[in-house]
Amino acid sequence: MALISPISSSNGKTFNQKLFSRIRVAIESDVPHIYKLMQQLFVYHDITHLLKSTESSVTSGLFNPKFPHLSPVTTLLIEVSANPFPSCLNDKTSSKEVDLNMPLIDEESEQFRVVKYDQHDVFIAGYVMFYPCFSSFFENPVFHMENFFIRECYRSKGFGKWLFSTMALEAARMGFSSIDWYASDWNESALGFYKHMGATISDDFRVLSLAGKALEAFEDDSN
Amino acid sequence: MALISPISSSNGKTFNQKLFSRIRVAIESDVPHIYKLMQQLFVYHDITHLLKSTESSVTSGLFNPKFPHLSPVTTLLIEVSANPFPSCLNDKTSSKEVDLNMPLIDEESEQFRVVKYDQHDVFIAGYVMFYPCFSSFFENPVFHMENFFIRECYRSKGFGKWLFSTMALEAARMGFSSIDWYASDWNESALGFYKHMGATISDDFRVLSLAGKALEAFEDDSN
Repeated sequence: MALISPISSSNGKTFNQKLFSRIRVAIESDVPHIYKLMQQLFVYHDITHLLKSTESSVTSGLFNPKFPHLSPVTTLLIEVSANPFPSCLNDKTSSKEVDLNMPLIDEESEQFRVVKYDQHDVFIAGYVMFYPCFSSFFENPVFHMENFFIRECYRSKGFGKWLFSTMALEAARMGFSSIDWYASDWNESALGFYKHMGATISDDFRVLSLAGKALEAFEDDSN
Repeated sequence: MALISPISSSNGKTFNQKLFSRIRVAIESDVPHIYKLMQQLFVYHDITHLLKSTESSVTSGLFNPKFPHLSPVTTLLIEVSANPFPSCLNDKTSSKEVDLNMPLIDEESEQFRVVKYDQHDVFIAGYVMFYPCFSSFFENPVFHMENFFIRECYRSKGFGKWLFSTMALEAARMGFSSIDWYASDWNESALGFYKHMGATISDDFRVLSLAGKALEAFEDDSN
């Protein structure tokens, strides 16, 4: 009788030898997964105190705007499976397979299981979120990259490069002038990755915001 | 016969005692002025090499989008005149007067003359440009402040605070969660002003961008 149960095998999905993956555009039913990824992103950056959005507000923001005239936000998801994905006519969907040198265990697989597929176990591995906007710097619009995150167990497999490249290709094909975003200055691996992708890093800009009571004060003053 | 002509008095508008001013929403015919202000903003920040937009692209971006689905950009202008502005029913327009301790000379007044008014000399003194967008940080949308600039001869008169407050009041009234923007880290007077306005300055974010050939390379790779 074993007193210690094999936690890792019972509490997660194990991938052996091959990992099949694809990128697709997120739909409204993906929001619970997107919000969990967003929470992990904020934990990773140690800024959970700044996370004021909710699953409900993300649903509104992405799929059901309460506020008119906002640029639509695109979320691309990476899905992984132990089985090949069926071929798909949607040209925004592409797939690839990764050879694993050793078994990969996703201990949080049940939290990120895509429930709409009956035949296969499919899980969300990461996401990128961006929207188009005007820029005074450039002739054409730009993408602002709002979030970019690959779950820990799926890193160093080329997924980040693939996901980023898919967004960058979309920007280039649309004739956009740039992709702009922020990154934490302590995150050397991310900065190194972005440099490798061709990004320019500005040292002389600070990021400012006016929020909460400081913003509300302007309305109080006007009364 | 004077060999040296009195440049400052003949080449500019002099305001004595009082400066009347108002804030209004820019229209398409304002773009030549807006683009000149934008050029001065980029000169002030010593980043003219980064100015790839043109008067034509600013017109498209603000008033005649070539690209669909972009958040509309609002530009608020400060106009000044030696004479009071006629009362206006547009509630986005407000006006105020400034007492001058000494005459104010606007040497570039002819470049910034508003030609549509027949009765009075009216000149553009500054602008703020912003657009609404989604934010993963907040429950409601935010404004991204793209540009903020007061022409040099009109600084230290309270115009910056008035213009910024007008935008902030609009954000607060719309129920938006924040205004976000970048500022140069060497620009202590601007950072001090923004702090005084209630802004939070983040030290640990870097601003990144992927533009030009580095972005186009993604399209080349896909062919």
